[in-house]
Amino acid sequence: MSDLRIGIVGVGAMGADHAERIVRRISGARLVAVSDPDTARAEELAVRLSGGGPAGGSAAAGAGAAGGAVRVIGDPLELVGAREVDAVILASPGFAHAEQLFACLEHGKPVLCEKPLTMDAASSLQVVEAEHKLGKPLIQVGFMRRFDPEYAALKQLLDSGELGRPLLLHNVHRNKANGPGFRSEMIVRDSMVHEVDVARWLFGSEISRITVHAPKPTGAVPDGVLDPQFAVFELANGAMADVEVFVNFQVGYEVRCEAVAERGSATIGLGSGVVTRAAGHWGGAVPEDFRVRFDLAYDIEVQRWIDAVGRGEIDGPSAWDGYAAAAVCEAGIASLNSGQPVAVDLADRRTVLG
Amino acid sequence: MSDLRIGIVGVGAMGADHAERIVRRISGARLVAVSDPDTARAEELAVRLSGGGPAGGSAAAGAGAAGGAVRVIGDPLELVGAREVDAVILASPGFAHAEQLFACLEHGKPVLCEKPLTMDAASSLQVVEAEHKLGKPLIQVGFMRRFDPEYAALKQLLDSGELGRPLLLHNVHRNKANGPGFRSEMIVRDSMVHEVDVARWLFGSEISRITVHAPKPTGAVPDGVLDPQFAVFELANGAMADVEVFVNFQVGYEVRCEAVAERGSATIGLGSGVVTRAAGHWGGAVPEDFRVRFDLAYDIEVQRWIDAVGRGEIDGPSAWDGYAAAAVCEAGIASLNSGQPVAVDLADRRTVLG
Amino acid sequence: MSDLRIGIVGVGAMGADHAERIVRRISGARLVAVSDPDTARAEELAVRLSGGGPAGGSAAAGAGAAGGAVRVIGDPLELVGAREVDAVILASPGFAHAEQLFACLEHGKPVLCEKPLTMDAASSLQVVEAEHKLGKPLIQVGFMRRFDPEYAALKQLLDSGELGRPLLLHNVHRNKANGPGFRSEMIVRDSMVHEVDVARWLFGSEISRITVHAPKPTGAVPDGVLDPQFAVFELANGAMADVEVFVNFQVGYEVRCEAVAERGSATIGLGSGVVTRAAGHWGGAVPEDFRVRFDLAYDIEVQRWIDAVGRGEIDGPSAWDGYAAAAVCEAGIASLNSGQPVAVDLADRRTVLG
Amino acid sequence: MSDLRIGIVGVGAMGADHAERIVRRISGARLVAVSDPDTARAEELAVRLSGGGPAGGSAAAGAGAAGGAVRVIGDPLELVGAREVDAVILASPGFAHAEQLFACLEHGKPVLCEKPLTMDAASSLQVVEAEHKLGKPLIQVGFMRRFDPEYAALKQLLDSGELGRPLLLHNVHRNKANGPGFRSEMIVRDSMVHEVDVARWLFGSEISRITVHAPKPTGAVPDGVLDPQFAVFELANGAMADVEVFVNFQVGYEVRCEAVAERGSATIGLGSGVVTRAAGHWGGAVPEDFRVRFDLAYDIEVQRWIDAVGRGEIDGPSAWDGYAAAAVCEAGIASLNSGQPVAVDLADRRTVLG
Repeated sequence: MSDLRIGIVGVGAMGADHAERIVRRISGARLVAVSDPDTARAEELAVRLSGGGPAGGSAAAGAGAAGGAVRVIGDPLELVGAREVDAVILASPGFAHAEQLFACLEHGKPVLCEKPLTMDAASSLQVVEAEHKLGKPLIQVGFMRRFDPEYAALKQLLDSGELGRPLLLHNVHRNKANGPGFRSEMIVRDSMVHEVDVARWLFGSEISRITVHAPKPTGAVPDGVLDPQFAVFELANGAMADVEVFVNFQVGYEVRCEAVAERGSATIGLGSGVVTRAAGHWGGAVPEDFRVRFDLAYDIEVQRWIDAVGRGEIDGPSAWDGYAAAAVCEAGIASLNSGQPVAVDLADRRTVLG
Repeated sequence: MSDLRIGIVGVGAMGADHAERIVRRISGARLVAVSDPDTARAEELAVRLSGGGPAGGSAAAGAGAAGGAVRVIGDPLELVGAREVDAVILASPGFAHAEQLFACLEHGKPVLCEKPLTMDAASSLQVVEAEHKLGKPLIQVGFMRRFDPEYAALKQLLDSGELGRPLLLHNVHRNKANGPGFRSEMIVRDSMVHEVDVARWLFGSEISRITVHAPKPTGAVPDGVLDPQFAVFELANGAMADVEVFVNFQVGYEVRCEAVAERGSATIGLGSGVVTRAAGHWGGAVPEDFRVRFDLAYDIEVQRWIDAVGRGEIDGPSAWDGYAAAAVCEAGIASLNSGQPVAVDLADRRTVLG
Repeated sequence: MSDLRIGIVGVGAMGADHAERIVRRISGARLVAVSDPDTARAEELAVRLSGGGPAGGSAAAGAGAAGGAVRVIGDPLELVGAREVDAVILASPGFAHAEQLFACLEHGKPVLCEKPLTMDAASSLQVVEAEHKLGKPLIQVGFMRRFDPEYAALKQLLDSGELGRPLLLHNVHRNKANGPGFRSEMIVRDSMVHEVDVARWLFGSEISRITVHAPKPTGAVPDGVLDPQFAVFELANGAMADVEVFVNFQVGYEVRCEAVAERGSATIGLGSGVVTRAAGHWGGAVPEDFRVRFDLAYDIEVQRWIDAVGRGEIDGPSAWDGYAAAAVCEAGIASLNSGQPVAVDLADRRTVLG
Repeated sequence: MSDLRIGIVGVGAMGADHAERIVRRISGARLVAVSDPDTARAEELAVRLSGGGPAGGSAAAGAGAAGGAVRVIGDPLELVGAREVDAVILASPGFAHAEQLFACLEHGKPVLCEKPLTMDAASSLQVVEAEHKLGKPLIQVGFMRRFDPEYAALKQLLDSGELGRPLLLHNVHRNKANGPGFRSEMIVRDSMVHEVDVARWLFGSEISRITVHAPKPTGAVPDGVLDPQFAVFELANGAMADVEVFVNFQVGYEVRCEAVAERGSATIGLGSGVVTRAAGHWGGAVPEDFRVRFDLAYDIEVQRWIDAVGRGEIDGPSAWDGYAAAAVCEAGIASLNSGQPVAVDLADRRTVLG
């Protein structure tokens, strides 16, 4: 049987996660190569996941670990072009994506590209057009929320029409604290971008206008940093979405979403798990970070991508979805800076894709 | 790389589930053989999961499916002894387990045995002793709840000592409706047995006495059938557990558990997921059956078993746990019939296992 | 307009609560007299609630306080017989109730008697018989849970038949810590007695047998004290109830109840109120004591009692309910001491009440 | 003792509710007069609540009902000026308030005025100035949410500073369906006005700018009606609030609110009560209308108003609060019509009130 042979570009936190995933929990795929500017990190990972040794030695993986030799390739473009690599996961920094995506297209390699597709709408559109010329979809973008069982159930419920036409979407997206070098636009580009994809996907419509408000910031950020932010999306089909992004919430990670339709509403992200009564309180833990909440979504996303590649398809957000998200985020950053609503500058889909 | 080659005995609902699991979602294992008295069903499954044809033809699985040829073997004991089978999953009816387990022990094959270990305490004890003679653990019993993330979190919380010593455990175990040929003792032997294992595991103590009460039954069962039942377990370490089992609850599947300790309580199984407001009500769906609730637990259980076999170990309930559960259920059925508390007749562990 | 003139016997915590209630929040009643062995406390209360001075001075209550002169009467029996007292609230210690109830009956004074009716089944039965001779109901017993909006809603739902016949009742009753001089039987007589009344009321049936188990106690109590306790009630109509009473739960006050019927279950006491996300947790506060949970129930109970007295009726638990509760608790204490199930010794209702 | 003698202007649904409240559940007040253009309705109410007959006959109220003769007065201004009326509740239509409020001020009668204070900011300001001239507060405005135990607890939590500075407030306000003659501005003026008061009160700041968005409306309303609406409030202190008002939600009445602060968030309005498992679902009932949710708030509001009048004070929203709400709603309606954010035109408080 031929497991799909995967190469991963970038083995920081996200890439390393994907590597572990492929080796330990995914069916039908093998990790064969990794690449990272930090060669030491790449080699450490390769050794750990080979169950024997890095490239060059044949390492028999112990039963239960779909490992084997994992080759460390210094040049990511060489990894993309390598014969032994059937498909690629891009977990490199956003600024490297454009070049690496074009390489994947050139070599006809299916690729799961962690968001963002590229750093800006213009280059994202170029990627879309380049893929379109090939005549088959090779790019899937890593908006993993679509694979979270709760988001999937919500989508299914809305599509069933049982609640009528969806009218509004209320979103809350909170992190415990930001990392170093945090800047206000990151809220839009790195966090809010998930709600952009969710809104487009749940409503089945493009976002035509966005307003990003910034209330007086929390005292937990340095002067000049705007956190939290509150955005309003106006969609082309008349629906609306609002999003609170609060990166320094101090409490933990929380992603919640309520869809309001003509005959009812549906909420996800309420959490649950173990409910404790202790020390004068009842309730549960708020997770530290996104992993607890979305680990399963990533597993499902990657498994389904691998299954789809086997069928010659993609099974998730397309390059167009990545481009549209970039276009909305550009407008969002403009709104954040101007304090005004900003129309989204998006190419006409039928013109681009036919 | 050597995937563990699995043979499955019994491809009814549970066995077929495991087969799908191995082929589509589990890392490091391959399905190589199935056996079932219903040959047609076994062959249909083998074809479906081979991605080509049954044994005899070489079938290349598409990428993403760890399939390959799946051989149908008429005689389960022949499957157990087959050279190409590294490890066995027993999903056959309980009455067949004893013979099949002895065969696994004889051939030194690691085996994941769906509960019950065997049909009665005496033969279960024989299996325990036989395995003990071999000097290494080969048998893991399929009490999957231990792998449910909520049960696992509860166990971790209790073990941490944060809430003090556990004192009581309240359990609720409900099904929508029973299948055909349902008899009152099945509630104890097939349903309550899960709470028996959970109580022993969470409290770290044997159950010394059990009372199974039967209130006036629901009108949904024929005369003479006792449903629901309400049991009280008294544990050797002084703790207690109570269990409501209601097989014809009419509503859906529900498994809930509250542990009460010296400084607090913790509850799991409260459900969540999508919370809807519609038609004058707020709330969510109660799942139809156990699959929604425990699919993930089975995936984790099987993945960890496979990983453990690779290390020459087990990683879950042992044959002793299967024997203890059988002993408690025998006492439970006696209590159900007599209306009295009944002491559990359990061999001394140190005597049996050294 | 003639407000009902109330006299309160016993102004400890409960009696003082009722006094405040009458003066500040109840419509159609006035507090005219109080009695307590602790004369200083009675006088302080009388002054505080008179809005001027105690008996002897004419005190005009300010608008908004249905006060007026509140007379302190040293002898509770004199208060019961006083002309200016239309109706009596007994909030004295249980051992004083029998004598004070007989006095109320003798003077034809309607009385709201805080539980217990009396200290034992025998004297309770005598009270029931004495009232029966009068030919009209004068005694209402203070099982306030029947007036809690959640219990009332539960009762209404079960009576509607929408869920079918009620089969089981799971109860949890927890306090933060016990007061001084705490003894094991108090759990049955003072705490569990509420669940006794609730079970009889919700199921509409007498309790025929009770088993009170005591697991190994929490380390928070001195040697010899049994806390928590876990009881099983078997009802005459075939239904069953179970009750965990845990007086030193350390966490706070919690009263929860789940009724299980043929086609569904209903739970109350889950709490709610403000749900906070802070310090890594989500959830709410567990109240310190019963007041937060049942303050409103007491208000409703007293208002409805006063309204009923105006109609010459009672509107809540009767003397028989008080007697039945005493009978069950006596059996419960016997079970706690013997470790065996104990049948409830209850007179035949039709014989006693005709 | 002198109960406060209350006259109610307007006995439609709200006024009749208040009448019942005074007679049956409020301490320290008596209903003495009602007025309504619908004389038949006023008389029916007067008879029902007199417990005997209307004005002219001496009606002894039964014990438990603080009734007595209730006089029907045709002219509301005559009621306001009547000697036997100590304080007034205005539950007349909004357009009648200005005249009736000036009458109350002229006669020095304390008045609880159901919202809106008046129909527009200008006349509201006149009322504020007129009251200010008198030198004592006579007017309390009926924004009852401040008295809802959950809103009160939320206020207390935010004021404690435990969660840090409040930054955002998310509000949801849904009704099942609108009444006849419904127009889009009613959403702002009659529904959203509650969130206006809540936001000002919880944040302790004026609202400086408002944007009212209207997504494509629900199909449940006639063409031209905009429902739901989604508003964004920008407060003077830098905080922000958002409000979804959806009058034809089809499901029932729901008012929910989440305050987000620097170190946590707090949510109210999640409901609870009886949680049922039946027919494949778990959950509870969504109330039909506002009464279930806010009946208690009204009781507390009126009781505290009456207590405060007795002290020569008010204890709730002032005339200024009514004026500020009117100013924000005027800006809100302008925004709804223009599609633009609109600054709130509010007089300077220190200038007006000194």
